[in-house]
Amino acid sequence: MINYIGTERLRALVARIGVGRFVEELAQEIAADYRRWDEFEKSARHASHSPTGVIELMPTTDGRLYSFKYVNGHPKNTAQGLLTVTAFGVLADVATGYPVLLSEMTFMTALRTAAVSALAATRMARASSRVMAIIGNGAQSEFQVIAFHRMVGIREVRLYDTDSEATAKLVRNLTRMQLPHLSVTRCSNTAEAVRGADIVTTVTADKRNATILMPQMIEPGMHLNAVGGDCPGKTELHPDILHHLRFRRICAQRFLCTALSAEAEW
Amino acid sequence: MINYIGTERLRALVARIGVGRFVEELAQEIAADYRRWDEFEKSARHASHSPTGVIELMPTTDGRLYSFKYVNGHPKNTAQGLLTVTAFGVLADVATGYPVLLSEMTFMTALRTAAVSALAATRMARASSRVMAIIGNGAQSEFQVIAFHRMVGIREVRLYDTDSEATAKLVRNLTRMQLPHLSVTRCSNTAEAVRGADIVTTVTADKRNATILMPQMIEPGMHLNAVGGDCPGKTELHPDILHHLRFRRICAQRFLCTALSAEAEW
Repeated sequence: MINYIGTERLRALVARIGVGRFVEELAQEIAADYRRWDEFEKSARHASHSPTGVIELMPTTDGRLYSFKYVNGHPKNTAQGLLTVTAFGVLADVATGYPVLLSEMTFMTALRTAAVSALAATRMARASSRVMAIIGNGAQSEFQVIAFHRMVGIREVRLYDTDSEATAKLVRNLTRMQLPHLSVTRCSNTAEAVRGADIVTTVTADKRNATILMPQMIEPGMHLNAVGGDCPGKTELHPDILHHLRFRRICAQRFLCTALSAEAEW
Repeated sequence: MINYIGTERLRALVARIGVGRFVEELAQEIAADYRRWDEFEKSARHASHSPTGVIELMPTTDGRLYSFKYVNGHPKNTAQGLLTVTAFGVLADVATGYPVLLSEMTFMTALRTAAVSALAATRMARASSRVMAIIGNGAQSEFQVIAFHRMVGIREVRLYDTDSEATAKLVRNLTRMQLPHLSVTRCSNTAEAVRGADIVTTVTADKRNATILMPQMIEPGMHLNAVGGDCPGKTELHPDILHHLRFRRICAQRFLCTALSAEAEW
């Protein structure tokens, strides 16, 4: 009846294609869908908040196919060895209402977030961007590096996380991947990582009303890829960054992605 | 990882318990949940309408468990041998956001609709109700008969459908079930079926702005179990029934059920 794609099949598929190429082709599909934006039914995600996290449903349709994604966000999960974000999705035939595909989407969510982040940067960041700071070095940051290395041409990443073990793990994984011409630098705080970067990626997930980036850290021409702040409390930017800095372009992708990107000019 | 209950396991479970007893125990569970109504997060279902039907997501949570149901409604599906309504549901752990159960719910939706219809009638219809008219004799009508026979004490059903083959199939199925002391009458139109009935069940599904029941058909003390009209266009009652008749009780269950029940008194 309904096709099912589980974690193993998805990982095998991505491994065969290669993560970098997979992310790049995924970004091309996403870009193609943005070009037919008007064909999609848009509605706010349905979010159910609890003290420990959020569970969301994200439905859309283009009139031929209907789909929704179930996704959770529970930052404290990692303490018990569980993932912060898990997801699955369903594709259905609009004509009959019958589901046709059930797919694990934890891994796809990670790839998609990285793909759309890099896609936005290809349109908005300076073409000469080579250095990226990454604040928050959890599972998603690895995909961010892969995507920005391949699609944007990043050649140096400057890492910082309040959990130094997260950074150490990211360094180990990046070293193992041997991405060509990529240098990896561990920094001892956010300001140090951000200083001189072309692109600043913040990818944190806690609902602590955090201010990862302060106004004084932002340099002219910097591209901000604020991935983590997608619901009340999950903030990464000091409010003054949005209130007082001037941006050349702002891209808040409420429906398809959690990234907000902007390029600062004083 | 996640448990799965498919059609076969569900049918085997219901067969072992018996449909009548299953529906009655399901109604008791539903009644128990109504008694802790305030514990549930309520939100409108997310409905995506198309020319052929509707696809809906119905999420809720009590703070410990989160669940949603995916359900479609496509009346023209039957012409191609497909079901009008199919459904599946997911149960998740609020503390971690991890899904714990994926269940086929096409069959459960049918049983649940019947259970809540009969549950409402046990609270709202006259205790002496023995005769029920059923307008619309598709798959759901069979479960309505089982539930009202067992829970309300219905002993005569009076059937009408614009598709006489649907009625013939319902008669065959009811005959095979041999529900004790139940007489089954085929009627040649709605008015004939409704006349003298204690309870009138309308269970149609088309978005044709239909008026199955007219004001002059409604008799004092009659209980209306209007099951089918759950979204714009899927009407069953002439507007004057709602505008001009006086009802003793009205129970419109927007979030948990599609039934609207009322007891007429002139």
